[in-house]
Parts: sequence; C-alpha cells; structure tokens
Amino acid sequence: MLGAIEAGGTKFVCAVGEKDGSIRERVEIPTTVPSETIVKVVEFFKRFEIDAIGIGSFGPIDVNQDSSTYGYITSTPKEGWRDFPFVQTMKEFFDVPIGFNTDVNAAALAEVRLVAAKGLESCLYITVGTGIGAGAVVQGRLLQGLSHPEMGHILVNRHPSDFYQGKCPYHQACLEGLAAGPAIEERWGEKGIDLVGRAEVWDLEGYYLAQALMSYILILSPQKIVMGGGVMHQQQVFSSIYKYLPEFMNHYVFLPDLKDYIVTPGLGNNAGITGAILLAELALEEQGDGSHASGARE
Amino acid sequence: MLGAIEAGGTKFVCAVGEKDGSIRERVEIPTTVPSETIVKVVEFFKRFEIDAIGIGSFGPIDVNQDSSTYGYITSTPKEGWRDFPFVQTMKEFFDVPIGFNTDVNAAALAEVRLVAAKGLESCLYITVGTGIGAGAVVQGRLLQGLSHPEMGHILVNRHPSDFYQGKCPYHQACLEGLAAGPAIEERWGEKGIDLVGRAEVWDLEGYYLAQALMSYILILSPQKIVMGGGVMHQQQVFSSIYKYLPEFMNHYVFLPDLKDYIVTPGLGNNAGITGAILLAELALEEQGDGSHASGARE
Repeated sequence: MLGAIEAGGTKFVCAVGEKDGSIRERVEIPTTVPSETIVKVVEFFKRFEIDAIGIGSFGPIDVNQDSSTYGYITSTPKEGWRDFPFVQTMKEFFDVPIGFNTDVNAAALAEVRLVAAKGLESCLYITVGTGIGAGAVVQGRLLQGLSHPEMGHILVNRHPSDFYQGKCPYHQACLEGLAAGPAIEERWGEKGIDLVGRAEVWDLEGYYLAQALMSYILILSPQKIVMGGGVMHQQQVFSSIYKYLPEFMNHYVFLPDLKDYIVTPGLGNNAGITGAILLAELALEEQGDGSHASGARE
Repeated sequence: MLGAIEAGGTKFVCAVGEKDGSIRERVEIPTTVPSETIVKVVEFFKRFEIDAIGIGSFGPIDVNQDSSTYGYITSTPKEGWRDFPFVQTMKEFFDVPIGFNTDVNAAALAEVRLVAAKGLESCLYITVGTGIGAGAVVQGRLLQGLSHPEMGHILVNRHPSDFYQGKCPYHQACLEGLAAGPAIEERWGEKGIDLVGRAEVWDLEGYYLAQALMSYILILSPQKIVMGGGVMHQQQVFSSIYKYLPEFMNHYVFLPDLKDYIVTPGLGNNAGITGAILLAELALEEQGDGSHASGARE
C-alpha cells in the first residue's frame, strides 16, 4: 500500500492508495502546528502497511537531494512550519522510501500520467486560489533545477485602468499579488464568490493570467496546461484567458485550440493527493534502482 | 568526422569536428537565399567524410519529430527561408543522421556539456544581439515541449521613465522589443557601440534583462545562466543585472552568488557551432538506439 500526503496551508489530505493512483481511503487533517498535525498524520498511516510515502507539500521546500536541508519546508511564513524537516520527521515513524516534491508538481505528475495530459511528455499545472502556484512535467520528468519552480511570482504588466496596488509581500504587484484570491477580494471589496455576476472582475483576472501563460508557453512550451484552484471554478476566467492569450501572443508562436489546450484538472480536487500517491510509487521504484526521485519514465 | 552548421540570419558557420566538440575546420558563408547558401554549405562538407550533421538554426523551426514539417524553418520573415525544409534538403546531399535544433539550444548544450555549466544538469543560454533568444538544457536534456522555447518575447514592465515604444513587430514592447540591439539603437539614436560611455543606456538594459531573468529563474530554476551576444559584450549590462535582479526578486527564492551564476559563455562565439557538433554526435548515437534527438544523457 502507498501512503500519500498533500500538505496544504489549511489542511493536510492523507490517503492510502495503489500505484495506479487510485485512492483506497483518505482523511483530512487541519494544518495547525507540526506537533499536532503530524501526530494525526502518523496515526492515520499506522493503520496500514505502508510500502512508501509520497509528499506533495506547500512550499517553498528543499527538493535538492544533495542539500543538507533536503526534505525541509524552508522559508514559509506559516507559523511553526519554517525549517520543518518534513521527510526526516516522517522517516522517524516509517522506515520506507519517501518521495518529496511540491503539491503542484505532484498534481502535474498526476495529470500527465493519468488524465488531462495522459500520454503527453509535458504538462503545466497551475493552481489559482489563496496563492498562485505551478508545477510542471517536462519531457516526462518533474521540473527541477536549482530548486522547484515558483512560477506564481512572475511579473506581469498592470492593466492601464487597474490601480490596485497588489498584495504580494515580496513583489507587491507580481502575478500572485494582482491575481490570487486575496487580491481579488481586496481590489473589489468582496469575496470572489460574491462577485460572480461582475464580468469585469473575471475579465481582469483572465487578463493577468493570460500574460503569465504567455511567459510560461514561451519559456516551457508545455503540451497541455491544466488550471485548478478556487478562482478557476469561475468558468468566466477561462473565457477571458481564451480571449486575451491569442491577442497578447499575436500569432508569434503556434497555439493549439485553446479549449483543448488550457483545461480544468481531470482529477478535480484530487490531482494533488493522487500525484502524491505517484510520488510514493516513484520513491519505491527509485529505491530499487538507486536513482533520484525525478519522475523519469525511462 | 562530424559536420556542424550554425545557421544564423546573417551568416552560416559550418564546421567539421570531433565528438568532444573540438573544431577541425570552419568556414563562414553569408546567408543570402537558400539556393546560394546551401550550395556553398554542401561544397564545404563534400570535402570530408561526414558521419552525421548537427544543425543549430535560427528560428522559429519545427523540432517536433512527429510533425509533417519537422526539420523546417517555419515562420521567419527572412526572405526565401520561410517554410524551408532544412533537414530534408541536407538529407538529399548527405545520407547521414541529422540533428536539428535551435542555435541557442545548441549553445546551451555546449555550455552544459563542456564549459560554463559543465557537470550540471541544467543551463539557460541567452543571446542578446539583433534579437533575444534563449535555449535551455533541463535535467540533462534540450528543453522541448510543444515546440522549442521562444523566451526572448516574454513581457516585461516598462521602466517608468522609458517612453520608447518598442520594436517587436509582434508584441511591440516585449523583452526583445525593448532590449535587443535595434531597440537600443532606436531609443538612444546611436548604435550600441557608440553608447559605451552612457551609463544610463546599460543600466536600463540590465533593468529589462533582470526582469526577464526573474521569470526564467522562477519558471525553470536553472543551475547556471550563460549570457552571450553583442549586447552582452558590455560588461556594464552584467553589473546592472547583478544590481536589479536581487532587488526584483526580493529574497523570495535563493539566488546563488550572481557573479558565478550569471556568466559569459565559456566558449565565447563558438558556443553555437560547438553545440551543433554535439547535436551531430547525438543524432549519430540516437540512430544507434532508435530514440529521439533530445540530448538525453541516460
């Protein structure tokens, strides 16, 4: 049996499942402080015979296996979780291979292996909610370099009639600062859910996301783009993206039919936890051949 | 013996060399129309016994081996070269494996295999000259998805005191439109070479390039960044990048020592042609095992 953790800022989803990504049982645990949350995580997994654990975590995290802080959550502002040795802590309770990556990289892996991007070599997974994060599979492997991607913080051009200052504590008016859920709420004075009838809200949202997609496409050229998260439940945002992206790109590179290219997650809200199951399976395989946890298919 | 072509908009560099990337003989041929230029290319290679040919080409090109126009230069504005079947034409004269990729991807490959990024798994190679292009090696392989990267055209934020309209025919004020050589010349009314003493020129240049680097780093997280091309001969641009990049990034992700992270090409002007030799070697290896030309090390 494979164990999986989708570690989020508000809740941990834990599951056990099979290597095809299917979920046998799942539970949700509130994210409070590590001492409380991890105890409940351990209790859940102790009920099963676990062969490996996959963790898709909120970040930033250290995914560099050559680093002395590999397996840590690093510079998060989230109380108690900064410099938390996630992999090491789990290892104390379970002597099994542990896969560790970002929640969004896990989701990208699940989509490319199982659903929306199945059979493709590359997939970009973007979540737009309380923050904006993205993970990617490139040529069959989870994207990783010096570290994992942090694509939600790229710069975009402000709309000429948008005077909202931006909400990112690091970059103020980066993509996340202008387009994540809290920015929508602060700019318009109401929660997104209460703004459904305001077309201009979602038009502007698509305006910013389309700029970011332009950069992602010019840099990564993904074969499929999957967009999830609370904000993307507004279908109007997709319509706005489909309008602005070709306008910004202006025929410079070939774009496939956008309705088929930029899609909702095939796994819905289960993309992350399913990806974490796949990370567990990868960790198990890689223990066998001694290679690094990269998502390689070869 | 391996044949190599670095196909540029003004000249073709052709060389023969060895699989370690060393050049035995090289020649430069002006880029006029295909019928003229290719005849001279063929004449050069006919003097040698060629086992494979690597082509690093200006673009956009079709690098998708499943496409009916694989091996073509596609939508270039360059007279006579639009829809030119580059690989197929070479195949008519030389019945050998042919590797085909962008000039900048070839350069990235050479830098990661041989010089500035040797021993690393990833490298971003950026050229800033009459245009801005970039290639990348990601986890040991040439970056490719739906197509090759076209990173020079990402959007950047205009400097509040820069009123130059931008020169990109597709996007007007994208990175290339604001920061390539012709934009520098048009904005300041003189060629870059005559602006060496004007510190504000190179400060602004670094301001735009640092924004682009921020996106490249947040999306790809390369282990090394190599910057070449005519504009980068101005050391002042590097100084400006070293100043602005940390300011824009604002400690959000870890940046290595920038003087060691963002560097000039180890191969100087030979990065592209050397990379083309490596593309030839890859094509030869891949003919052996039947796999695709991806730069995989495994």
